[in-house]
Amino acid sequence: MRSELSKRLEAEISKMPVIDPHTHLQHKSPSAQFIGNIFGYHYIKMELSTVGMDVERLMDESLPPDTFLKNALPFIPRIRNTTTWWGFMTICNALGFEDATINEGNWEKLCEVAAETMESEKWYRKALDSINIKRSFLTNPPDEAMEGCDMEAFVPSLRTDEWVLNIHEDATREKLEKLTDSSVTSLKDMKVAIHQVAQRFISLGAASMAISLPPGFQVFLVDEADAVAIYDKILQKKRLSDDEFARLRIYMLYSLFEICDELNLPFQMMLGVDRGIHLRLGWDGFSTDLGMMKTFRDALNRFPNVKMVFSILNTILTHELAIYAKTFANCYAAGHWWYTFYPCIIKPMILERLQAVPYPKLIGWYSDSYYVEWTIAKIKLYIRTLANALAEIVEDGYMDEDMALEVARALLWDNNAEIFTLD
Amino acid sequence: MRSELSKRLEAEISKMPVIDPHTHLQHKSPSAQFIGNIFGYHYIKMELSTVGMDVERLMDESLPPDTFLKNALPFIPRIRNTTTWWGFMTICNALGFEDATINEGNWEKLCEVAAETMESEKWYRKALDSINIKRSFLTNPPDEAMEGCDMEAFVPSLRTDEWVLNIHEDATREKLEKLTDSSVTSLKDMKVAIHQVAQRFISLGAASMAISLPPGFQVFLVDEADAVAIYDKILQKKRLSDDEFARLRIYMLYSLFEICDELNLPFQMMLGVDRGIHLRLGWDGFSTDLGMMKTFRDALNRFPNVKMVFSILNTILTHELAIYAKTFANCYAAGHWWYTFYPCIIKPMILERLQAVPYPKLIGWYSDSYYVEWTIAKIKLYIRTLANALAEIVEDGYMDEDMALEVARALLWDNNAEIFTLD
Amino acid sequence: MRSELSKRLEAEISKMPVIDPHTHLQHKSPSAQFIGNIFGYHYIKMELSTVGMDVERLMDESLPPDTFLKNALPFIPRIRNTTTWWGFMTICNALGFEDATINEGNWEKLCEVAAETMESEKWYRKALDSINIKRSFLTNPPDEAMEGCDMEAFVPSLRTDEWVLNIHEDATREKLEKLTDSSVTSLKDMKVAIHQVAQRFISLGAASMAISLPPGFQVFLVDEADAVAIYDKILQKKRLSDDEFARLRIYMLYSLFEICDELNLPFQMMLGVDRGIHLRLGWDGFSTDLGMMKTFRDALNRFPNVKMVFSILNTILTHELAIYAKTFANCYAAGHWWYTFYPCIIKPMILERLQAVPYPKLIGWYSDSYYVEWTIAKIKLYIRTLANALAEIVEDGYMDEDMALEVARALLWDNNAEIFTLD
Repeated sequence: MRSELSKRLEAEISKMPVIDPHTHLQHKSPSAQFIGNIFGYHYIKMELSTVGMDVERLMDESLPPDTFLKNALPFIPRIRNTTTWWGFMTICNALGFEDATINEGNWEKLCEVAAETMESEKWYRKALDSINIKRSFLTNPPDEAMEGCDMEAFVPSLRTDEWVLNIHEDATREKLEKLTDSSVTSLKDMKVAIHQVAQRFISLGAASMAISLPPGFQVFLVDEADAVAIYDKILQKKRLSDDEFARLRIYMLYSLFEICDELNLPFQMMLGVDRGIHLRLGWDGFSTDLGMMKTFRDALNRFPNVKMVFSILNTILTHELAIYAKTFANCYAAGHWWYTFYPCIIKPMILERLQAVPYPKLIGWYSDSYYVEWTIAKIKLYIRTLANALAEIVEDGYMDEDMALEVARALLWDNNAEIFTLD
Repeated sequence: MRSELSKRLEAEISKMPVIDPHTHLQHKSPSAQFIGNIFGYHYIKMELSTVGMDVERLMDESLPPDTFLKNALPFIPRIRNTTTWWGFMTICNALGFEDATINEGNWEKLCEVAAETMESEKWYRKALDSINIKRSFLTNPPDEAMEGCDMEAFVPSLRTDEWVLNIHEDATREKLEKLTDSSVTSLKDMKVAIHQVAQRFISLGAASMAISLPPGFQVFLVDEADAVAIYDKILQKKRLSDDEFARLRIYMLYSLFEICDELNLPFQMMLGVDRGIHLRLGWDGFSTDLGMMKTFRDALNRFPNVKMVFSILNTILTHELAIYAKTFANCYAAGHWWYTFYPCIIKPMILERLQAVPYPKLIGWYSDSYYVEWTIAKIKLYIRTLANALAEIVEDGYMDEDMALEVARALLWDNNAEIFTLD
Repeated sequence: MRSELSKRLEAEISKMPVIDPHTHLQHKSPSAQFIGNIFGYHYIKMELSTVGMDVERLMDESLPPDTFLKNALPFIPRIRNTTTWWGFMTICNALGFEDATINEGNWEKLCEVAAETMESEKWYRKALDSINIKRSFLTNPPDEAMEGCDMEAFVPSLRTDEWVLNIHEDATREKLEKLTDSSVTSLKDMKVAIHQVAQRFISLGAASMAISLPPGFQVFLVDEADAVAIYDKILQKKRLSDDEFARLRIYMLYSLFEICDELNLPFQMMLGVDRGIHLRLGWDGFSTDLGMMKTFRDALNRFPNVKMVFSILNTILTHELAIYAKTFANCYAAGHWWYTFYPCIIKPMILERLQAVPYPKLIGWYSDSYYVEWTIAKIKLYIRTLANALAEIVEDGYMDEDMALEVARALLWDNNAEIFTLD
C-alpha cells in the first residue's frame, strides 16, 4: 500500500520547479493542437498495432488526426492496462475531458474539448507552467533555424548523430558546407566546420551536444592520420571496408569530445537503440552489448573536463552506469528512457542510483516528448515513482524527509542547472 | 505488509477459470498416485541433493516411491525455506494431510492419506476442478498414441524438438517414416512427412506446436538448396561440419514456421535450457546469450501470421521479451518458467509486462507440471504473486480494481482461448 | 512502510552471533584509530571525488588522517544521500559522536570523541562484541607473519591470487622459495611449495583459500605436460603468447582446486573486478562476462568435494549463481560484494536466494572491511535489509516467523561454521 509519506512527498515534489533536459519539442509548434496527434504518439500506435489494429491504414499520417481516435475505438479496450494508456488519459483530463474511458459515445466530445484547450492563447506555456517546467531542451539538427524561438522556455541542444553515423554521406558534408559557407575538402575542414556550427549554437544559447549511439558502438582512440586517409577515400568516392567505416565514426565521436572540451559543452549520449527492427512498420527496438558502458572508459579518462551524460536503453546495464557515475567525476546518469520509462523499471533505478551515487551526479528525468501534452503525463508518472522510491529510503532510515525533498529538487532542477550551466 | 486489496484480489482470482497451456501431464496417468512421486519431482530432488542427500541411491527410481520420503527425512529440515518446499506442503494439505511439517512421526500417515485421496474416482478431474483448470495442454511427441485421451480436460500440443535438434539422427527419420507410412529420401520428403504429422495432430485437437531451444541457438534464413545438400550428406552418412549442422537445424525451424503458417498453428518456444550441466546427476541448467531474442527478428518479420509464444529461462532478457511482445503483433510473452518460477522473480516480470505490454499479448501462467498435484501448488503461488503485483498497480493508481480483475481473467483464460483458438 | 514484523525481526537478528567470513582486517591493527582513516575508506573517497573534490591533494596519504575530514567539509553535503554516508554516520554514532551532521563547527569534536573511543583498551574486541561478531576471517598473503594474532577473534584465510594471476613473475617464485626454503626449478616444484604453504596455513588455523578473478577469466582443464612446458619457458625467460599465459593461469587455478581437495579446504572465489579503470586515481570497476559462472561447470563437476564459495560483482548473474548453488552440492553463494552492497540490490538477491536455494548453501554476509569500525556499519545495513526481505517472505506466507529467524541464524553463523568447519 502506498504510504502517507509517499503521497506527501508526491504532493511536495509536484510543486518544485523542473528543467526538462531532453525533448523533441518543435519550438515553432510545441503543442499537439489535436488530441489525435497526442493519440498518434508512437508509444500508443505500437500498442494498438500489437493488439491487431492495422495502423498503417487506420492511422495513416494523411488522415485528419482525430480520425485516428475514431478508428482505434474497437482496439482501445485492449490496451487500457499499460501506463502509456494511463498517461494518455492523464493528458485528456489535463485538457479538460473528465470521462474515465473513451468510446463511441464520447470520443467526439474529447476531440472538441481538447482542441479548444489547445487553441487557447499561449497554451504551451500554460501547459508547461501547470507542471512547473521552466526550461525545456530542444533537439536541434545542425541546420535548424532558431529565429523566433521562445528562449525563455526553450534551451537548444545540438544533435550530432549525422556527423558520426552518417559521416560517409555526401549530404552530411554538403549541409555543413552550406551552413558554414565553406568548402570541405578534408577531414580537417570537416572538423573546423563542425566547430563553427557548435559555436553558432552556443551563441544561440545551446547548453549541450547530444547523440544517440547503437548498442554495439565501439569507442577507442583512432589515429588521426588513419582517419584522414579514410575520409579521403570517401571524398574520392572509394568504398570503405566495415572496419574503416567503424574507425572513421569513432574518430568523429572523439572529435566531438574535443570540441566539447574546447567549448565547455556537456555531451548527452543515449545508448542502445536498434533502428527499424520491425521492418514493415519501421519501429525501433533495442538490444544490449555488455561492452556498452565499458567502451567509454578510455574517453572518460581522456576527457576529464567533458561532462558525459549517459542514458541507456536497457535494464541490464543500469547498475554499471550508476557505478560509472560514482567512479568518474565527468560521468553522469540521466533519467529513464523510452522502453525503460515504466514505474516498475524506474523505481529500482532510482533506488540504485540514490543509494550508490552522490546525487549531484544524477539527472532525474527528461520527457523525450514531441508535444508538451505528453510532458504532462511523463512528469506525473515520474514524480509518483520518485516519491515511492524516496519514501522507501526514508522509511528504511537511510535519509530523512528533508533530505529526500532536497534530493528531489536536485534531480529535477539543481543538477540540470549545474551540469548545463543554466541561469 | 500484504494489503487487504492484495488478499481480496487473490480470493477473486482464485475463483476464475484457468487454461494451463503447457504441461508434461501424461493423459493416461495425470495423477502421481503416490506422495513419493510428488516428492520425487526434480525440483525437490535437486534441493535435497544440494544439501547433502545421496539422491542417486536414496531416491533411486527402482525404489518404491514412498521410500524417497522416508529416506529424505534427515534432509527435509534443510530445504524448508524454499518456495518449492512451500509448494510441496501445499500439495500435502490439498491431499488431506493437515500437519505443518513432515518427520519420523507422521510421514507414513502422509503416504496413506495422500494415496487414499489420489485413488479416489476421477481424482485428477477433481484436482483440476479444485483450482478451476478447465483445459491443460499436453506435450506430445510425434508418435504419441492419443487413444482414450480425455479431450475435455486435455489439449494436445505437438512437440517438435527432434525435427530440429536431432534432424541428423536416423531415429528421427525412421520414426517419421513409420508414422506416415512413407519413405523419406530427401529433405523435401522430410518436410512433407512433418506436415502430415502436424495435420494429424490438428485433427486430434492439437492447438500448438512447441519446442525448446538452447541459449545460443541462431535463427536466420538458410537457403533451401543449401539445406537440401546438407541433408543429402546425412542420408549418405557423411559427416557434417558444425556450421552445416547449425544451418540445417535453422532451416528445419524455418520449415516448422512455414507449416505453422499454412496450418494456422501457434508456436510455443521455450528458450534457454542447457542440458545436463550436472554431469553425474544429469541435471539441466541455463545460461544466457544476449542475442537470444534478437535472433528472432527475421522470423518475426517474415512470418507475421505465425503466433510465436515465447518463454525465456533467465531474468536478463525478460525486459527485452516484453518489448518484443509490444513491438510485434505476432509475438507473445508467456509465463514464468522453471528457474524463474519464484515469487520474487515472477512479480517484477508481471509488473513489467502489465505496464508495458497490452494485456492480450500475455499468457500469465502455465504449470509445466508432470502431475496434476504440482499444478495445484504452482497455480496458487502464481495467483498470490499476481495479486500482489496487481495490488501494487492499483494502489499506485495506474489501474482500477475492476480492470485488475479483467486483466487477471485474460492472463489465465481469455488470452489462451484467443491465441490458441479454443472453444 | 516498514512493517512491525520487519522491525521485530531486525531486533531479534541483531542479537544473533555472527561470523564474518571475508575481511581485510590487519590482525596487528584491526581498528582505524582515527576517524580520518574511517573517513578515508575508498568507498567515501570515490564519492567525494565524483562530486568535485581533489582527493589526490586533499586526502593524500601523507597528510594526518583527520585533515581528510576537514578538507572534505565543503563536499560532504553533496554525498549525504548514499548509504555509504549513512554507514559513516552510523560509525560516528557508535564511536560516541551524537550529532546528525558534520560541519565546520563539530568536526574537531568528532575527531576527538572518535580517537578517544578507539584508544580504549581492547577496543576492537569491544567493537566486534557490540555487533556480536565472534570470528572474523583475515585475508593473508602467503608470506604474512601470524605471530601474535588473536586467534580467538580471527581466522586466517590464504589469499592465492599471485599463484594464478602473477604466476609469470619472478617475485612469485622467489617468495615461495623463501617461504619453503626450497628451490623452484619446475612447475612441479612450484606446486609442491604451494601445497607446503597451504599446509602451514592450515596448521595456523586457516579455514579457506581465497582468490579474486577478473570478469573474463576462463576455466577449463589444461593438460599438465602443456602447462609444464609453458612454465619452463618462463624459467628460461622466454616470452609467452597470450594463449600460453591464459592456459598456465588456468592450470594453476586447477592446481589450487587439487590442493583444496587434498587438504579439505573450502575455496572462496570473488568474481568480476576490473582493476584500475580510473587511470589517474587507480580505482577499480567491474564488468560482466556472461560466461563468468558457466565457465566453472567443469571444475564444479570435476571437484565434487571442493566447496566453492562464490561472490559475484554484478547484478546480472546473481540469478545464475543462485541456481548454481541449488544445482551443485559443492557450490555456495556468498554475500553482497562491494558495488552490490546497497539495500536495493541486496534485498532482491536475498529473496531470490531464499526462495530458490536451500538455506545451508548460502553465506548471508561478509564485511570486506579494512577496519572493525566499518564492520559495524555494514552488518547493521545488512541486518536491516535481511529483516525487510524475511518480513516480505513471512507476510506472503511462504515461511513462518520462527523459520525466518532460523534462516537468519544460519546465514550469519551456522552455515559459516558448517562450510568452514569452525568450532
